[in-house]
Amino acid sequence: MNVRQMWKAKIEGRARPSASAPDGPGAFTLKRTPFVGQVLGIDPSLRGTGLALIEFMPGRQPVLLRCQTVKVAAKHPMPYALGEINRAVADFLDGAAVFHVALEQTIFVQNFQTAQILGAARGAAIAAAALRELPVFEYAPLRVKQAVVGAGRASKEQMARTVMAMLGHGRRLAPDEADAAGVALCHALTWRG
Amino acid sequence: MNVRQMWKAKIEGRARPSASAPDGPGAFTLKRTPFVGQVLGIDPSLRGTGLALIEFMPGRQPVLLRCQTVKVAAKHPMPYALGEINRAVADFLDGAAVFHVALEQTIFVQNFQTAQILGAARGAAIAAAALRELPVFEYAPLRVKQAVVGAGRASKEQMARTVMAMLGHGRRLAPDEADAAGVALCHALTWRG
Repeated sequence: MNVRQMWKAKIEGRARPSASAPDGPGAFTLKRTPFVGQVLGIDPSLRGTGLALIEFMPGRQPVLLRCQTVKVAAKHPMPYALGEINRAVADFLDGAAVFHVALEQTIFVQNFQTAQILGAARGAAIAAAALRELPVFEYAPLRVKQAVVGAGRASKEQMARTVMAMLGHGRRLAPDEADAAGVALCHALTWRG
Repeated sequence: MNVRQMWKAKIEGRARPSASAPDGPGAFTLKRTPFVGQVLGIDPSLRGTGLALIEFMPGRQPVLLRCQTVKVAAKHPMPYALGEINRAVADFLDGAAVFHVALEQTIFVQNFQTAQILGAARGAAIAAAALRELPVFEYAPLRVKQAVVGAGRASKEQMARTVMAMLGHGRRLAPDEADAAGVALCHALTWRG
């Protein structure tokens, strides 16, 4: 099964009513179509925020429209980094027709200080989306792996490989961009709009 | 000693060279003048961010130009609250000639989740300042109390009372606005520009 087939099977698997569900007109499962439109996936961190803008069209392989890692050198102070994250997210949103924004939840970090800094990076990113009145969705890392790879215990490398295969993307994505793309894919695959 | 005298003594105490320092022309202590200009003090939290814009002029009592508590009801999701914080800070900054932004550091919170949410509120606030290329300063709560009240162990009520006295402010400030004003006062009082 090649990449395109893999993706098609995923979409059809979700669009098709399950064996036990009624599939007459107006049945609930008919609403369970995959997401259609553009999703901005964000993997926020103070010094390397991953951004991936993906377009989903019915029955077609998703397209990576744009991706970026917002790198901020350690010599720049924290407020500067937060401004850059905010600006980059705003730039992605203003230059596209994004429907939804998706972020991975931070589940555990070493200490209070790190939690706060990661939180600040998330806040700077989310604020840009909220100001534009875009719905923001958060997913636990386990859920992202399950939705994308099909296994909650998938390694970072497996995730990146599957993401790149799903997008049929030629060049290798940077790790933070692959994570951002992963959460955008998770959003589209698990969407129950 | 009335409020105006108290403030004057504080300013003069800082502007005057200390007993042991040289006070000839060009001596270091001559640079230790108090801050002049507008400072936006911010006390960020997800549901009740305090904002206080204070103007400092040489030898005069500081003036509270504007204050606000950004209240966001619990029924609104977290991203909405972050957008409101970002918008309110931007609104204060765009409508004034702010030189510096000052925030109180969060020293300790109960758990990881709270640390992250507080961090996000800070991030949303700081990003608005950073985008406008305004310098952002952070102060430990102990330092704010020491600078404003003169005692690191001052109670919240003592802080609020002293802040209101310094500003000669008629109406009672809301607690979050008093905290925001406190950190702005701390910035101006300890400024070594």
